[in-house]
Amino acid sequence: MTDSSIEAISPKAVAAALSRVRAQRPLVQCITNDVVQEITANVLLAAGMSPAMVPAPEEAAAFAQFAADALLCNVGTPSEENSRGMKLAAATMSEAGKPWTLDPVGAGGTAWRDDLISDLIDLRPTVIRGNGSEILACAGFAHQYKGVDSLDSSRSALDAAKALAQRSGGIVCVSGETDYATDGTRVLAAVGGNVMATLVVGTGCSLSALTAGFAAKAEDPLVATIACCQFVKRAAEIAGNASRGPGSFHDAYLDALYTLQPENFLEEAV
Amino acid sequence: MTDSSIEAISPKAVAAALSRVRAQRPLVQCITNDVVQEITANVLLAAGMSPAMVPAPEEAAAFAQFAADALLCNVGTPSEENSRGMKLAAATMSEAGKPWTLDPVGAGGTAWRDDLISDLIDLRPTVIRGNGSEILACAGFAHQYKGVDSLDSSRSALDAAKALAQRSGGIVCVSGETDYATDGTRVLAAVGGNVMATLVVGTGCSLSALTAGFAAKAEDPLVATIACCQFVKRAAEIAGNASRGPGSFHDAYLDALYTLQPENFLEEAV
Amino acid sequence: MTDSSIEAISPKAVAAALSRVRAQRPLVQCITNDVVQEITANVLLAAGMSPAMVPAPEEAAAFAQFAADALLCNVGTPSEENSRGMKLAAATMSEAGKPWTLDPVGAGGTAWRDDLISDLIDLRPTVIRGNGSEILACAGFAHQYKGVDSLDSSRSALDAAKALAQRSGGIVCVSGETDYATDGTRVLAAVGGNVMATLVVGTGCSLSALTAGFAAKAEDPLVATIACCQFVKRAAEIAGNASRGPGSFHDAYLDALYTLQPENFLEEAV
Repeated sequence: MTDSSIEAISPKAVAAALSRVRAQRPLVQCITNDVVQEITANVLLAAGMSPAMVPAPEEAAAFAQFAADALLCNVGTPSEENSRGMKLAAATMSEAGKPWTLDPVGAGGTAWRDDLISDLIDLRPTVIRGNGSEILACAGFAHQYKGVDSLDSSRSALDAAKALAQRSGGIVCVSGETDYATDGTRVLAAVGGNVMATLVVGTGCSLSALTAGFAAKAEDPLVATIACCQFVKRAAEIAGNASRGPGSFHDAYLDALYTLQPENFLEEAV
Repeated sequence: MTDSSIEAISPKAVAAALSRVRAQRPLVQCITNDVVQEITANVLLAAGMSPAMVPAPEEAAAFAQFAADALLCNVGTPSEENSRGMKLAAATMSEAGKPWTLDPVGAGGTAWRDDLISDLIDLRPTVIRGNGSEILACAGFAHQYKGVDSLDSSRSALDAAKALAQRSGGIVCVSGETDYATDGTRVLAAVGGNVMATLVVGTGCSLSALTAGFAAKAEDPLVATIACCQFVKRAAEIAGNASRGPGSFHDAYLDALYTLQPENFLEEAV
Repeated sequence: MTDSSIEAISPKAVAAALSRVRAQRPLVQCITNDVVQEITANVLLAAGMSPAMVPAPEEAAAFAQFAADALLCNVGTPSEENSRGMKLAAATMSEAGKPWTLDPVGAGGTAWRDDLISDLIDLRPTVIRGNGSEILACAGFAHQYKGVDSLDSSRSALDAAKALAQRSGGIVCVSGETDYATDGTRVLAAVGGNVMATLVVGTGCSLSALTAGFAAKAEDPLVATIACCQFVKRAAEIAGNASRGPGSFHDAYLDALYTLQPENFLEEAV
């Protein structure tokens, strides 16, 4: 961190956020893309949350109203139907004062997708989490584009993240070698991780789902968001040390999310 | 088993049922939710069956008619389209006298989903398999609700299972620490398993798919159903001993379903 | 190889094709079935490509036009919507002179599916890849049918493959114990592999996605296609030696796709 206005999240704050999640076991409703449904559910379960994939417009808002503690809207494979489900559920959560995360997968690609993302930002997501290129695109900044990959670093998207947070009124989180979360003023950072995570589909998408769960009943959603990122980066480090490639990394990552305890962060802090 | 009317399935019966499945390699048509498609196919393959996901209303009934040995209908992520596919395929199987299993995922949640479940029960499923809360909800008994998780034990849903079996005219199977299957009169039980299975999405949903395959050409579908549950509980035990968390459990579970042989149950019986 | 007109692909050609892929990192747009989305993305990532699942008719053609280097169309779980997406994207690729692969999953089953496959063949796929039964069915030859499994060997489908290649004007690739690729005249073969791959859903479907990426900017798409098959067979061999069942095979396979380098094939050639 050369920029003095950026603060690393403390191990103690990570431990506290993880303790809260493990105690509350939040029910996270997910309306996500067709590719990452299974890993998203498994990541939430491993971390100590209850996933429920409820995308259909016929029941998404009802479920958001009476059952969900948090919601994820991920636009990776939008359809007319799941788009309607997202808007109904997101509006319900915002009205009810419950947290939801928007993952703007592939932002800056097709006009159709960008329109959907813009509509969802207007519904005031608690957290917007994406990679550098996606956050730059969402904020209307210049960016590079290669499908769902990022060609822009998280650091290069930090000004865009702040501008976007000011527009959305919530938190914006940019993932990359270092993760950043900002409310438009404060900037917190999480470091570590393992590059192998970029070779397993859904590690980013499921991180977005986790941020929704961490924001549930959080005193400070900004701290909860970056604590979540730090928890995930630590799990990726452990998995990286225990694997030979993306196949074994995937399993080791789920195992690490499950075995990591708040104490592990406190020990580190000593 | 303190209740004398509940009988544990014998290892010999499990071995016989597994031998039949391995010899016949039944083709199981699956119309299931978006989250568990891959694990369901992999579990069927590992156990020695042929999966075929054929949900589209344009071809679901034709496939049920001329190709499928058994059918799974799982309402985890219902849509207008796959709901129609389920009804068409289920009606075809019932008319043709071929077995099908209903998995009423998330029963007792939204009215829209409960209506679909009720319509499917009217089509006379050979087996209804769910967790405690789902079976209680299907039977119209009081139950707790937290998305797709069960807050009610399988034991507490036994009376509901019997009542539901009498209504549906088929078998009802309740999963939990102990699994029970009933035809409304007889009750058989399967014991063992490993709690880690509850942290891997799709272990329950794929069990439902397996019960459909075990019921194909079975003399006694009640015995076939609980034999299937016992086979799966044994595989989960083996996997539990070979894993460190839900990631490694997932793989060890598929390996165990594949390596377990009828003889392994007969040895145990000695 | 008893048939003198069939030539085994050389290790040198495999090394060259793999080097090109690793250097170019092609962006492969996938419109594939609901079951294999995750493994397809992970296989592409492990092999060194960028996957992007973009099936919606609202954006599939635009993405094909401005972003995709190659395209996969897989009809495993067709719907009105993804069928439209496939046709729009495939037509765009053919017009732009960019490669795309058709995977005719379950060909020879329902009339509805066969009509879709026929429409896609008319759009001139660069590669058609399927198992023996599927290629026989696509070519209008007699075949056996059991859902998505093949009851016909790849060798028995070789004449059908040649006939189909002459009709489509592209390459046809038949997978099995030996893989064959033909442009209607030449026939190249890839050998090795491991039978465990048939017990993991999506190994065939993801091979089709890989062939699209290998064909991107290839001088000779026939050589690129069978080089891809040989790369995959080698990875399956390594995985087979490192696993105890289909669960551990799945991970070891992804690890092997990632760790295999062009040099490994050159060493073998010495």
